[in-house]
Amino acid sequence: MAMFFNIFSLKNLLVLSLALNLSLVLRVLYEKDFEVNNGRSVDNQKDALTTTDGVLSEARATQRARPSMPSSSSTVDSDGGDTIINLDHGDPTMYERFWQQAGDKSTIVIPGWQSMSYFSDAGSLCWFLEPEFAKEIIRLHKTVGNAVTEDRYIVVGTGSTQLYQAVLYALSPQDAVEPLSVVSAAPYYSSYPLITDCLKSGLYKWAGDARSFNKEGPFIELVTSPNNPDGYVRQSVVNKSGGILVHDLAYYWPQYTPIASAANHDIMLFTVSKSTGHAGMRIGWALVKDEEVAKKMVKFVELNTIGVSKDSQLRAAKVLQVVIHSCQYPTSLGSLFDFSAHLMEERWKLLRAAVRQSGLFTLPEFSPGSCSFLNRSFAPQPAFAWLKCQEPMEDCEGFLRSNNIITRSGKHFGVSPQYVRISMLDRDENFYIFVERLSTIHQRQSVQVDETGE
Amino acid sequence: MAMFFNIFSLKNLLVLSLALNLSLVLRVLYEKDFEVNNGRSVDNQKDALTTTDGVLSEARATQRARPSMPSSSSTVDSDGGDTIINLDHGDPTMYERFWQQAGDKSTIVIPGWQSMSYFSDAGSLCWFLEPEFAKEIIRLHKTVGNAVTEDRYIVVGTGSTQLYQAVLYALSPQDAVEPLSVVSAAPYYSSYPLITDCLKSGLYKWAGDARSFNKEGPFIELVTSPNNPDGYVRQSVVNKSGGILVHDLAYYWPQYTPIASAANHDIMLFTVSKSTGHAGMRIGWALVKDEEVAKKMVKFVELNTIGVSKDSQLRAAKVLQVVIHSCQYPTSLGSLFDFSAHLMEERWKLLRAAVRQSGLFTLPEFSPGSCSFLNRSFAPQPAFAWLKCQEPMEDCEGFLRSNNIITRSGKHFGVSPQYVRISMLDRDENFYIFVERLSTIHQRQSVQVDETGE
Repeated sequence: MAMFFNIFSLKNLLVLSLALNLSLVLRVLYEKDFEVNNGRSVDNQKDALTTTDGVLSEARATQRARPSMPSSSSTVDSDGGDTIINLDHGDPTMYERFWQQAGDKSTIVIPGWQSMSYFSDAGSLCWFLEPEFAKEIIRLHKTVGNAVTEDRYIVVGTGSTQLYQAVLYALSPQDAVEPLSVVSAAPYYSSYPLITDCLKSGLYKWAGDARSFNKEGPFIELVTSPNNPDGYVRQSVVNKSGGILVHDLAYYWPQYTPIASAANHDIMLFTVSKSTGHAGMRIGWALVKDEEVAKKMVKFVELNTIGVSKDSQLRAAKVLQVVIHSCQYPTSLGSLFDFSAHLMEERWKLLRAAVRQSGLFTLPEFSPGSCSFLNRSFAPQPAFAWLKCQEPMEDCEGFLRSNNIITRSGKHFGVSPQYVRISMLDRDENFYIFVERLSTIHQRQSVQVDETGE
Repeated sequence: MAMFFNIFSLKNLLVLSLALNLSLVLRVLYEKDFEVNNGRSVDNQKDALTTTDGVLSEARATQRARPSMPSSSSTVDSDGGDTIINLDHGDPTMYERFWQQAGDKSTIVIPGWQSMSYFSDAGSLCWFLEPEFAKEIIRLHKTVGNAVTEDRYIVVGTGSTQLYQAVLYALSPQDAVEPLSVVSAAPYYSSYPLITDCLKSGLYKWAGDARSFNKEGPFIELVTSPNNPDGYVRQSVVNKSGGILVHDLAYYWPQYTPIASAANHDIMLFTVSKSTGHAGMRIGWALVKDEEVAKKMVKFVELNTIGVSKDSQLRAAKVLQVVIHSCQYPTSLGSLFDFSAHLMEERWKLLRAAVRQSGLFTLPEFSPGSCSFLNRSFAPQPAFAWLKCQEPMEDCEGFLRSNNIITRSGKHFGVSPQYVRISMLDRDENFYIFVERLSTIHQRQSVQVDETGE
């Protein structure tokens, strides 16, 4: 016990303990509401251990959202280390707390006879885009100041994943002799290569790390900024002509990074999953400058899924409305961005403290920047931690897995397995068990060695 | 006027007139509800004329759902023939009336904090399938008796369109030298070739009419039964080994065809669009016998859209619940299937009468069959009319378009442009204007010839 106090500062422990208590109090307060209003649990996820590779199936290990929690963190890894903590994918359940506290304002009611037609606005370019949702998208960007919406077409998609494919379809010539190359600077989002190549399309082909790309002819460069997995703000890196840039701005929101200015690119992708936390809605949107590109994207979504769930679009419109209102008329809870920016700041502090204490890992360092929305300067606090295991450890994912922490190996992101990506957006309980366990991994390893007599 | 009575039987006119009146009364009754509850109109579709080819964009001509309607049908084409009636796609707005009458039972309420995670049931094979929806799918099939659900995996999709692609992905070997051939007997669903070939996949390739397919090696045969576009019940037609059958049973419901027995195939696709009329939900499901096939389908949906809208799945669960209840405890309104079977019967009678009177077209003829669900014998009354223009007319779609009726040409279905597909599922007003106009086309043409002095 004394040893634990030695390696973990009192201040860190206090913050951790307070956070845990806050989390428990909120659970108690909202537990009843959950069961009464919902008739179901938000986390009725069964236990399952990961068996296959892929975008998400890797990630289906235990998600114990309501483990038997200690009321304080004053024991070493208080859950005994048995709970499997799955931080492989970026499931944004951290946001549930905000929406519980926001109450009924964001509740949507849809009568059975509503939204039955395929069409949302038959006369508009994106005929399956709900006009109310389009309106709120524009209002949100104007409120936050993170993207230019003037002279842009909005294309809605079943998540930004579908829009990514719509962009590839739209930008690839139908009559080209060979597939268009698609590149992104490593470390790049692990799903890009899998999605791009899954159907062995003759239209486009994954061509790997943008930094080493030197093929002649046209190509698509994906610029994810802030970047998934490492959180850095990015620019295009390919230094030759013929490239079409696609900006994935899923994380360009003030809870993750300072908003420097309104992004003003030709093709910009966003998603509610990472802005409001509603991943289950499967709603993303693209802001597209060129009309022909927007039309072809619409055509892709038409061929792929004949439009996008109207129910989710209507719900997304309502949720954005509440977000905008929370910015304009902040309550004691603050806006969604105040809430989540604060939470991210706190989590990154805890994570950095745990990493320091463990002595086994390093994290990216960021410079502070001025945020025009939050009116203050801060360093990026990304949605993922890009953790590096120190030498001589080579398989960071395997090492953490042996400690019941599921992460995604750097090899999926085009770099060394010394790196792993860790979601920072999980529910409080899971996150706190994770940092607690991380901080004591070194110690745990020693205890194990002692016990086995090795 | 007298001439109109001569060519159109009094009984036909009476049914038409009563239907129109019923429709208008219902409109008046529900108009207020629409605007008060919804804050928006269900048919705020702007006028737009079709410009491009494709699955749906062809179909975006004017959809005047509430035209200035005559209170009786006792004039020749009472709207003057100016309203563009778009029956190109199968937008199932006919069902709105049932759901309006069903009232609040089918209303869904979703709080802002619900369904935020990507996961619906992390431990199950289809981790993004809402368990409540899965339960109702099984109950519905058991109630209707149209499909075996025992020993099947359920995979949910963003409409059955996405599931069709998931099936292609699942059945195609990843390491094959050449793409797997995909065939279906003509006339086949017009979207199949477009969807199959849109990305020029190296995994699979559209190979056209199943009847003329004679390539060696493995292939996929799509069996749509009842068939889209012609409504006939179908079996596999390729008479050689190596084929994998995929059954698209979107229309195997008692409003369209007698339920002879529970379908018991390896891969069966269904959709709410055509069963309950909720096309805007974008929800379909597959019943799949083989675990590995189901797993690969799940992988496709994961790569394509990281799951399926939870909001729509929850709403679909609620809607199916109401449908099942309407079967078990029918009110004066009858079950959804009573309501829609009756409507389809009435519509087909009107259409056949109009076709007889026009003298310019023919329709498929169907033999009656016994329906185990409705406990009576009736002939198929498909969701589409497969209309053939008589000689010497060669371009049926163009001819009807010149009469402001938008349909889909037979050429998209792999057959002659003498045929067109016409949706039978539009709102009452549009359908009645359509049959009225069709019955008088010959007369209208004569009048035009007279007027121009040709």
